[in-house]
Amino acid sequence: MTSESEIAKHLVSLFPIRRSITGDGNRETLAYLGEITPLEVVEVPSGTEVFDWVVPQEWRATEAWIEDADGHRWVDFRDNPLHVVNYSIAVDLTIGWEELEKNLFVHPELPDAIPYRTSYYQKSWGFCLTQQQREQMAGARGPFRVVIDSEHFDGSLSYGEILLPGESTREILISSYICHPHMANDGVSGMLVTALLARSLAAMPSRKWSYRIIFVPETIGAITYCHRNSSAIKELAAGLEITTVGGPGPFGLKQSWNGTHWINDLLRNVLDENTAPWKEYPFDIHGADERQFSSQAFRVNVATVSKDRYYEYPEYHTSADNLDLVTPAQLRQSLELYLRVINKMEELRFFRNKQPNCEVMMSKHDLYPKFGGAIKPIPGAPSSLSVALWLLFYLDGNTPLSSISTWTGIPVDALEDALDQLVSRGIVEEVLA
Amino acid sequence: MTSESEIAKHLVSLFPIRRSITGDGNRETLAYLGEITPLEVVEVPSGTEVFDWVVPQEWRATEAWIEDADGHRWVDFRDNPLHVVNYSIAVDLTIGWEELEKNLFVHPELPDAIPYRTSYYQKSWGFCLTQQQREQMAGARGPFRVVIDSEHFDGSLSYGEILLPGESTREILISSYICHPHMANDGVSGMLVTALLARSLAAMPSRKWSYRIIFVPETIGAITYCHRNSSAIKELAAGLEITTVGGPGPFGLKQSWNGTHWINDLLRNVLDENTAPWKEYPFDIHGADERQFSSQAFRVNVATVSKDRYYEYPEYHTSADNLDLVTPAQLRQSLELYLRVINKMEELRFFRNKQPNCEVMMSKHDLYPKFGGAIKPIPGAPSSLSVALWLLFYLDGNTPLSSISTWTGIPVDALEDALDQLVSRGIVEEVLA
Amino acid sequence: MTSESEIAKHLVSLFPIRRSITGDGNRETLAYLGEITPLEVVEVPSGTEVFDWVVPQEWRATEAWIEDADGHRWVDFRDNPLHVVNYSIAVDLTIGWEELEKNLFVHPELPDAIPYRTSYYQKSWGFCLTQQQREQMAGARGPFRVVIDSEHFDGSLSYGEILLPGESTREILISSYICHPHMANDGVSGMLVTALLARSLAAMPSRKWSYRIIFVPETIGAITYCHRNSSAIKELAAGLEITTVGGPGPFGLKQSWNGTHWINDLLRNVLDENTAPWKEYPFDIHGADERQFSSQAFRVNVATVSKDRYYEYPEYHTSADNLDLVTPAQLRQSLELYLRVINKMEELRFFRNKQPNCEVMMSKHDLYPKFGGAIKPIPGAPSSLSVALWLLFYLDGNTPLSSISTWTGIPVDALEDALDQLVSRGIVEEVLA
Repeated sequence: MTSESEIAKHLVSLFPIRRSITGDGNRETLAYLGEITPLEVVEVPSGTEVFDWVVPQEWRATEAWIEDADGHRWVDFRDNPLHVVNYSIAVDLTIGWEELEKNLFVHPELPDAIPYRTSYYQKSWGFCLTQQQREQMAGARGPFRVVIDSEHFDGSLSYGEILLPGESTREILISSYICHPHMANDGVSGMLVTALLARSLAAMPSRKWSYRIIFVPETIGAITYCHRNSSAIKELAAGLEITTVGGPGPFGLKQSWNGTHWINDLLRNVLDENTAPWKEYPFDIHGADERQFSSQAFRVNVATVSKDRYYEYPEYHTSADNLDLVTPAQLRQSLELYLRVINKMEELRFFRNKQPNCEVMMSKHDLYPKFGGAIKPIPGAPSSLSVALWLLFYLDGNTPLSSISTWTGIPVDALEDALDQLVSRGIVEEVLA
Repeated sequence: MTSESEIAKHLVSLFPIRRSITGDGNRETLAYLGEITPLEVVEVPSGTEVFDWVVPQEWRATEAWIEDADGHRWVDFRDNPLHVVNYSIAVDLTIGWEELEKNLFVHPELPDAIPYRTSYYQKSWGFCLTQQQREQMAGARGPFRVVIDSEHFDGSLSYGEILLPGESTREILISSYICHPHMANDGVSGMLVTALLARSLAAMPSRKWSYRIIFVPETIGAITYCHRNSSAIKELAAGLEITTVGGPGPFGLKQSWNGTHWINDLLRNVLDENTAPWKEYPFDIHGADERQFSSQAFRVNVATVSKDRYYEYPEYHTSADNLDLVTPAQLRQSLELYLRVINKMEELRFFRNKQPNCEVMMSKHDLYPKFGGAIKPIPGAPSSLSVALWLLFYLDGNTPLSSISTWTGIPVDALEDALDQLVSRGIVEEVLA
Repeated sequence: MTSESEIAKHLVSLFPIRRSITGDGNRETLAYLGEITPLEVVEVPSGTEVFDWVVPQEWRATEAWIEDADGHRWVDFRDNPLHVVNYSIAVDLTIGWEELEKNLFVHPELPDAIPYRTSYYQKSWGFCLTQQQREQMAGARGPFRVVIDSEHFDGSLSYGEILLPGESTREILISSYICHPHMANDGVSGMLVTALLARSLAAMPSRKWSYRIIFVPETIGAITYCHRNSSAIKELAAGLEITTVGGPGPFGLKQSWNGTHWINDLLRNVLDENTAPWKEYPFDIHGADERQFSSQAFRVNVATVSKDRYYEYPEYHTSADNLDLVTPAQLRQSLELYLRVINKMEELRFFRNKQPNCEVMMSKHDLYPKFGGAIKPIPGAPSSLSVALWLLFYLDGNTPLSSISTWTGIPVDALEDALDQLVSRGIVEEVLA
């Protein structure tokens, strides 16, 4: 199991990297994740059309600051990359407070936090700062010198991909995003848990499912990925979007678009095995990249278990989403939970009663009490024979155990025990997922 | 908007016309309605076979009265056409009270009202009168002279039809009946609201739907119409049966046969916009001509909004269903409601997200806030961005907004606002109904 | 109607026959039942493969007893065939109490009853006895002489079959089992009611349905039958498994696997006509031969009405399930109930409104009140006209009355009355089941 000290090291290393939807910070991030577990980095040139979108130019900023007429520098993005609106155009202006003010963003509720703002697709510029900074600067002597030394240039969008083949060619998607700079829960936590999870998956001696694990800039990266891999995405069995998994709060399940899909049942089961309370959210068109995978052309069932979910924790999208908020211990809880999810998914099997005609001869397989005649179902506690008979009644190659559990009231564990016996005796056979 | 004084004039003009399932009264009625809005009158000859039925002969009555031995005329249909059973055969009899009594009908609950009775398909005769008339006549000196000067003759059944083409060839049926004599709510109200509604529809500069508006004698007229237009009826998108819309009571919605069809949602929405309470009735095989349009071969979803629905108001099918009960103001309320229904239907659109692959790039279309990062859904009041995203998720060319409203809890109005934006930007396209 | 004295005679005759899953006792049983009503006996050779099973060898036992060292015979299967475990291998041993004890079975709850145990598919031996017998024998002087003179030999499995053709080629299965020795409720009652029912069915001048009536050893016999008749079984319209129908307790309905199938509605209706309370059990993979007919390859809806159902009465699978428990009067109640079931099934008709276009002209068929105008539905008590109209709305050749009853709330009886009128007038026509 991954140690907290290892997690702490990765958190500290990944946190300060200056990420965006493109650029060297993303390449640095992918390189770092690639040391945790091997991944392929794919570069998609600026200008590539991807469905309704176009891969944007790269953005590189080297300076971004505001000084008053006395030469006092009030804001400098070297202190925190959040200070500059991501993808700001270059400016070098000397302007009064009224004009400057229009391009300043503070957080409405957290006076000491720098908010996170972007302007990827509009040529614009701006600074983000704390309320205190803004108030004090308002009292300074203008005009103000405003410098953003940035450039937009043809380059590429970078994403990472890991394909882990399994016994079945059917794939599970695990997706996380790499575009959020200098934030710990909504940023580092998702990509780090995903990479550690991928390392565990890669180390498994065998896998039932094939896994498709991707590290993409949110939205544009997922869309680019869907465009380049649309056939594979359409064939996905299910998916997990891993995001905001490092906070101190409770786990929360955001359902996939079809709330009755087995992925939701499976996640509920894992969460119920925890003693801690957890929340459940219906599918929503807001969220992370499950939005893309759930769109009309794909309709993949992608669910998320988060820990202090995006939108809900006060520090969301601010400089307060930092390493005070996200601890190695919390992140390890999420990693452990997702490992249990993977285990459950690996345990998830589709089976077929090989003998659909009448009953299987249970005694032939040592599944019937030696002396017949006394067999009657015991109320409340179904015998292993009963459980086996229900399985044989329902297992048609398409029905997951969770559905049979719902229909019969028999716990999944009990079904799994009986299933093992039926499989080991060759009565039912696994059908590849 | 139609004025109450105009409505009053039409009520007074239409009320006394002596209607039946055939005959000159119906032609006069259709001619009058044709002056409100142009309609084509179709004559179908007596004896024409229409499914299980035959178009009956015409019926014309010139005299119908009862006198006692002293020459006192107790009942005369010149006072009120309801006095004679509609389609009574001709008689000229001098008979005692016992024999006469068998052919007299009074209302069991309203002593002062003349009941409405018919004998369209059985050769029979009878008189309808008030309880008081009956009691007093019972004390008169017999024998009684009973004269009905009527004739049944080969002629035709008359109906009116208006076809209003729209952008789509898919049709909405609006049906009302013209056969009830001398009754205001169950008779004049339906045909008058229908004619005024048709006038408004005809005056619309453009229509999305095509409309098929018919004025038929109830049952036999609707069956005749279905027989002559069976292909068109089978292709109807939905329908409205307009009847008993002039009373003082609350509005009532009778659902179409498939309670989940959008026509019912749409009518519920319109009724909910009123502050006044309203009732809802499940589909019933009793009712008006929706019975024909809902039959196995057609299964059209035809719903009704009534105001003091047939069967339920005490004056139903009596002479008390008159211009004291039905006022221009009440009728105008119904007209306004149906105009709102038409508006809602015209607003009802079927749309398709032209970009089913991943998300549409909202910022490209100026549908995304200038500075990203702060986007999170606001509880209780979905942003226009949220609404648009839900629409893009669901709009597949077959899904009406009312369904999306039900699934998401977003009011239809809000969906419509967002839809306008998506359409105007070419992101979604309308699919013809 | 079958008299109680006749039933009493059959009970006394059938009860002592030494039945098993094969053998002369079964042939004797089938011969006796064949005198009640003609049936064909089919012999299937030992060793025949039937799906997952093999038809076993026959078993014949001529002696089975235990004596102590003093020559006192404590247990002898001549007293009761239940004393020997059915299909016991031959033994002739002189053994101590400790070894003997391992092969003795008593009933845990009924001290005076001999339990019923079998070992059809495991080569084994054993004795069943009362608790008292066991205690007293434990005090006797050993060693004990244990003799079972039995043989297993290639022979055949015997079953009985009656095919009664009806107007429709669609078949109803009636199945009962003939393998339980010396028990009255779980054994004789089912086969006897089935034979008497078959006699009544055979005597019917005409039948709507075809009937397939089988007398099989439980499980292996039903599986053998399904194997030899798989096409016919797949085409069955529905079925009844008749078992444990002679007890003093209430009737109980075990639903077929699809609880909404008409067979369940029909049985509920019959049971509701009784004043006596009855129980309902959901489908269960435990039970009798409905297990085979409900398996994946067949999925026939086979339901059971029992009287003191297997598993539930204390005397189940013991020597106390005898002619004190099962009385001719109780068995006659079950027979009468199943006769009512047959009548209901024979009455079950699938009808088609011959006039799907608009309404039927009810007055033409004398189904409309003479004078129209006063027709309105009466709340709570639908008029015969209403009932007829609902039937015409729904009867499409596939919809049984029980479904229409559920949808409209109109009792089946009222639907049947109206249906008779519609049929007699040629408005609807029967469609073969």
